[in-house]
Amino acid sequence: MALIVQKFGGTSVGSTERIEQVAAKIKQFRADGHDIVVVVSAMSGETNRLLALAQQITEKPSKREMDVMVSTGEQVTIALLSMALIKQGVPAVSFTGAQIPLVTDSEFSKARILSIDESKVRAQLQAGKVVVVAGFQGVDEQGNITTLGRGGSDTTAVALAAALKADECQIYTDVDGVYTTDPRVVPQAKRLEQITFEEMLEMASLGSKILQIRAVEFAGKYNVPLRVLHSFQEGAGTLITLDDEDSMEQPVISGIAFSRDEAKLTIRGVPDTPGVAFKILGPVSAANIEIDMIVQNVAKDNTTDFTFTVNHLDYDKALEVLNSVATSIGAREVAGTTNIAKVSIVGVGMRSHAGVASCMFEALAKENINIQMISTSEIKVSVVVEEKYLELAVRALHTAFDLDAPTKKAE
Amino acid sequence: MALIVQKFGGTSVGSTERIEQVAAKIKQFRADGHDIVVVVSAMSGETNRLLALAQQITEKPSKREMDVMVSTGEQVTIALLSMALIKQGVPAVSFTGAQIPLVTDSEFSKARILSIDESKVRAQLQAGKVVVVAGFQGVDEQGNITTLGRGGSDTTAVALAAALKADECQIYTDVDGVYTTDPRVVPQAKRLEQITFEEMLEMASLGSKILQIRAVEFAGKYNVPLRVLHSFQEGAGTLITLDDEDSMEQPVISGIAFSRDEAKLTIRGVPDTPGVAFKILGPVSAANIEIDMIVQNVAKDNTTDFTFTVNHLDYDKALEVLNSVATSIGAREVAGTTNIAKVSIVGVGMRSHAGVASCMFEALAKENINIQMISTSEIKVSVVVEEKYLELAVRALHTAFDLDAPTKKAE
Repeated sequence: MALIVQKFGGTSVGSTERIEQVAAKIKQFRADGHDIVVVVSAMSGETNRLLALAQQITEKPSKREMDVMVSTGEQVTIALLSMALIKQGVPAVSFTGAQIPLVTDSEFSKARILSIDESKVRAQLQAGKVVVVAGFQGVDEQGNITTLGRGGSDTTAVALAAALKADECQIYTDVDGVYTTDPRVVPQAKRLEQITFEEMLEMASLGSKILQIRAVEFAGKYNVPLRVLHSFQEGAGTLITLDDEDSMEQPVISGIAFSRDEAKLTIRGVPDTPGVAFKILGPVSAANIEIDMIVQNVAKDNTTDFTFTVNHLDYDKALEVLNSVATSIGAREVAGTTNIAKVSIVGVGMRSHAGVASCMFEALAKENINIQMISTSEIKVSVVVEEKYLELAVRALHTAFDLDAPTKKAE
Repeated sequence: MALIVQKFGGTSVGSTERIEQVAAKIKQFRADGHDIVVVVSAMSGETNRLLALAQQITEKPSKREMDVMVSTGEQVTIALLSMALIKQGVPAVSFTGAQIPLVTDSEFSKARILSIDESKVRAQLQAGKVVVVAGFQGVDEQGNITTLGRGGSDTTAVALAAALKADECQIYTDVDGVYTTDPRVVPQAKRLEQITFEEMLEMASLGSKILQIRAVEFAGKYNVPLRVLHSFQEGAGTLITLDDEDSMEQPVISGIAFSRDEAKLTIRGVPDTPGVAFKILGPVSAANIEIDMIVQNVAKDNTTDFTFTVNHLDYDKALEVLNSVATSIGAREVAGTTNIAKVSIVGVGMRSHAGVASCMFEALAKENINIQMISTSEIKVSVVVEEKYLELAVRALHTAFDLDAPTKKAE
């Protein structure tokens, strides 16, 4: 008998048939003796329908009113799912974010959770009910309706699980777990039984889009065991938990993440004076451009080269900023390209294993893949390569780090 | 400078274009220096769309969850109208029923208003904003979302006007006011400048469907001046207020209402003993059938005839009940027909004028219309006639009581 928070996204509740399937699934869990809190998103398509209505009126709708409007999407789903549960003989009750209340700050469209009063939810659980909660939404201290922004429903589920001290938070998606890498690139990629929060964060931020970073951070902070599962297939999914330090079985590398969404900018012949990094990157940040990797070469002839990556959508803006910076600091030239990709190996095991980076570089060298930039963290090594080598690099690393499944997927 | 509560129904906000038109109208009112609170319904069609979703899941949806779901309809409208106002340069803010809060009892789908906290609305008005409120919905004392049932948005508007002590509550509809009778039956029918709450109640309950009875009752109880206007046409509409006793201009009759939705039942040869009326009508009421007019003839040979009317939808059920009653009390026979209509003259002026009823009977006699039943109240005389005479009766009375407009409508 456990307390489980389950989250079903928009596709899983995209039609009344699917909502009835979800209800049947929940009924089964309850029959197994579990207490269930369910967090749902708006039915797929509903949020876009509402956004289109607003766009017919104005291109710049009031953010407060947008939140009033789009929060109705989840409100419809909680009602429908509760009806479906009740019809199947499962006592159920729905709560909007405001009814919980799930209190947030007042940053409409991207509010942050401040606190959750779990008492109403707990009372309904004790009364034998499944509690169905609207994801993605909350209420600020003045009573205004807020939404949590992208991935908000995952965050709602994790935050509720933390507040309720739930035994597990299950995120139902359209994949059956977290894989060692994207199976579309490496067919031998295998599902991970378990992964740490830290690893998942690196995987997520590096382009694996199963879970929102924010939800994983939250789960890690409050140590909420998080499980990713397929909505309509059987299977144990992938459990995301704290690092199990006792485990000797820990593989060195858990997975390989990659991203095509990067662009690289280089400023050459920068006078090598103190504070130059700030002079270059300050204006870029001021233009609201997020910087990812940064590499500064050793100075030569009192000048240095400075390279960094940004999201490719910010490339043109960054180039513009950098050109003006180059003039003001007397740099020689600015160059850049979007023709790159980032490949990263991720694993908490590398903390206790030397030579992981060199093993990576060796595998890439064997395939004659030139490394343009390198960046490392405690549990990750990232390299930038020319974009055309991306798939080759991922496959080579997947094999080099023994991640290939023993047999091709025939299960 | 006045404080005005305006209510726009589903058709008036049925598309984003119409919402923008409503916003422009409100902007004009504000430019005239008024403080405006707007109550809106769900966009027409939206409530049905939601009901259809629920019906796909279950024929008997949980009433609590139905209210959670259908209340989203108005929530979308308040957001869109607020956006439209802001776009047109009018500061605006929306409130759901729960945000006000408009507190109701817990009778889901037909909740009654218990109290309104007008402080948030007033604060926003003082901050120079138009306040846009979701009609039809409230919240119970436990924080559950409730809806007010049919005509709920009118009631919300009147209740808010009462709580705010507004100068006027304006109900925008698809007609330009209250008429002396249905212009489809009497082309010379004219718009009334003014009518009393009592008269409006009689008109409404007798089949004139412009305003919900509940809203008129509420307005009368709290003395909220109520005005019915056309959403998209200019005009002063009809003002519904307390009886102006000083007015000498008061016409004897304000209007003529009629209804085809009646059925008549007669039980003949009833032993004339005390309590016989209850023995007959008790079982009818117990079967949840509403009784309208009742006539009992003078007893003859120790038996009497007893006739009453019900809604024609209840006719079969009422007949069944009455047959069983007839057996048990030893009545001679039961008869009935749905082939009737009720015509009523309504006017507070008849209080101070004798002979109104006889004037009515004379007008009908002139047209050879036989009167089957008569019922009177302080400000109304109703007669039941054979259905085929309905239009003729209404036209004859409209002329007899000088209600015809001086010229045919050529405006």
